[in-house]
Amino acid sequence: MIGELTNDRVLVDEKGIDELYKSGYFGRPKGNKLELSLVEAAYLLYRNKIKAQENEKGLDFTDFFKKASLRQQYFELKYIVYKDIRERGLYIQPGVTDFRVYPRGGHPGKSQPRSYIHVHSERIPLSLKDLQKLLETADNVHKQLILAIVDEESDITFYEAKKVNIKGDMKKLYPDLTTSASLMEDRVLIWDGESSNTIHENGFYGKLLDPEHLQLSLVESGYLLENNIIQVNDRKNGNHLNFSEFSKRASFIESEFPRKCRVYSDLRNRGLVPKTGFKFGTHFRVYKQVESSNNIPHSEYLVHALPNDYEFILPVMSRAIRLANSVKKRMLFAVEKEKGFEYIDIGRVKM
Amino acid sequence: MIGELTNDRVLVDEKGIDELYKSGYFGRPKGNKLELSLVEAAYLLYRNKIKAQENEKGLDFTDFFKKASLRQQYFELKYIVYKDIRERGLYIQPGVTDFRVYPRGGHPGKSQPRSYIHVHSERIPLSLKDLQKLLETADNVHKQLILAIVDEESDITFYEAKKVNIKGDMKKLYPDLTTSASLMEDRVLIWDGESSNTIHENGFYGKLLDPEHLQLSLVESGYLLENNIIQVNDRKNGNHLNFSEFSKRASFIESEFPRKCRVYSDLRNRGLVPKTGFKFGTHFRVYKQVESSNNIPHSEYLVHALPNDYEFILPVMSRAIRLANSVKKRMLFAVEKEKGFEYIDIGRVKM
Repeated sequence: MIGELTNDRVLVDEKGIDELYKSGYFGRPKGNKLELSLVEAAYLLYRNKIKAQENEKGLDFTDFFKKASLRQQYFELKYIVYKDIRERGLYIQPGVTDFRVYPRGGHPGKSQPRSYIHVHSERIPLSLKDLQKLLETADNVHKQLILAIVDEESDITFYEAKKVNIKGDMKKLYPDLTTSASLMEDRVLIWDGESSNTIHENGFYGKLLDPEHLQLSLVESGYLLENNIIQVNDRKNGNHLNFSEFSKRASFIESEFPRKCRVYSDLRNRGLVPKTGFKFGTHFRVYKQVESSNNIPHSEYLVHALPNDYEFILPVMSRAIRLANSVKKRMLFAVEKEKGFEYIDIGRVKM
Repeated sequence: MIGELTNDRVLVDEKGIDELYKSGYFGRPKGNKLELSLVEAAYLLYRNKIKAQENEKGLDFTDFFKKASLRQQYFELKYIVYKDIRERGLYIQPGVTDFRVYPRGGHPGKSQPRSYIHVHSERIPLSLKDLQKLLETADNVHKQLILAIVDEESDITFYEAKKVNIKGDMKKLYPDLTTSASLMEDRVLIWDGESSNTIHENGFYGKLLDPEHLQLSLVESGYLLENNIIQVNDRKNGNHLNFSEFSKRASFIESEFPRKCRVYSDLRNRGLVPKTGFKFGTHFRVYKQVESSNNIPHSEYLVHALPNDYEFILPVMSRAIRLANSVKKRMLFAVEKEKGFEYIDIGRVKM
């Protein structure tokens, strides 16, 4: 069977409809011809199912591959992913996000595709905006969004990205009291022993420096200050700091403070318990519920707050997700919306 | 016992030498007085072993702590680390890098300190230059260098940093052949089936696209090109690219190419087998030996090449090390020296 290369398509005559489409779901019938994309044609060429020519001149695999790679951006990456999925026994067709993939046992004409696949090189940053667009495209037609990231040695890692609505089980967000605290160099200390313990035990705020003194992180302090649980003074002159003064000081210590503080509040207000995620390299590790500091459960999520103009550096994303999954947590990226935050869960999947 | 606060020191009279130094190795005898650092004095104050005063005015723990934190940078961090180590039953004294710690069972006057401790906040980047200076200070007196990183919630993670000399067991660095290859969009393809397989099997270079075609990453290609194993041509016009032309093109695709390529060569020349570390978020995962692509052993190291002006963002460093350790690999940072590279191993330790 001859495939004629024309621009960025390959056309096969009527026989192709029976032998390639009906028996293998390659290409799409167009009138009495079968139209193949460049990756489909390259794959069929490699499998010796078709021969390729252009203007009546024969093209071997090498010729075709070089030509195709000049006509379609990221052709090699797309070919690598197409071949991989096809050889897993799944039917795959070109689609709006690069490919659509049918569920195992399904095929065009019989069932709906299950996943939209977006192919991306590990070297090229993926902007949050582009990811959000991809998510919207897939969500609108109720498809799973899969990111197929191809590394420099052509290994593929598949990630599923989805929006999740998270909720915790904390009934009371903070205790009923007001106590005074001092802003030290980059953390806050509560001096009163009873208040220290009550705040620590009711919501798992801070860490006890010793049995009488509670240390709070800046975001914990911001949240408790905004809700009037603590009054914060300056260690030098004892002057009270209101939320906006505190926030200014905290932002000087930690430039990401305002966004981190807003995510912290959002998580707390969802009934969750956020604590620092330093050991995991993220902003927060998040518990669904902590009833007592003597009995800390497993934390469910790692949460990292992203600015709206964020660009995912894929090796960094890969590391974050791999680490989260290795400790049985979900990696969530928090994105600020007009009201509150949206959480995007990205995790590795097997195809 | 009264401790008199004078600038950034606290002085206790003769009784202190017996009761604090000889029985607990707090402070240092100076003539007939005992001199305490601010953290030592704060700790003894918290333990009710001394009372503090300044100009004959008594200071309680809160007063003393606020004053001390204004007189010594990062006082709270140092206090947190000092208290933690002391309460692990180890003797600790102020030292050039912040603290020196005695081995379990050892103490000043009896034994040499074992470790030099440097205290650092997770929020403050640690420059590679500073780390190298710390390493030199500790190395010169044959001490272990410990980084005590304090997170925003005052949890401490201890890391040991040390220089390591790594060597692999590969006897032959590459096969004896020369074959032609094409630079595609961001990787290189070898078209000849036999050469593809020989290069893949002798040194674990590249990844087979299919049984006849080998894909090489840019650094692999750079190394093989420099050693005349492959000749690289341009997919558009077939023109040969010499190493310097190839390097220019590769640097355009990947700005870190030159440094990555130099580390890659250094690792290969040490008899090691570097492959991409994408899935771990690092430049390379490194094997001691790969005899056949059908029998890939566990990789020993993750290696990341740093520019000389690098600054460690500590949550990022923490994540890299945690991930490496979770997959039983050592995390090494490659630093370029006048000749070749030096490797710094950083790993979590228990004190």
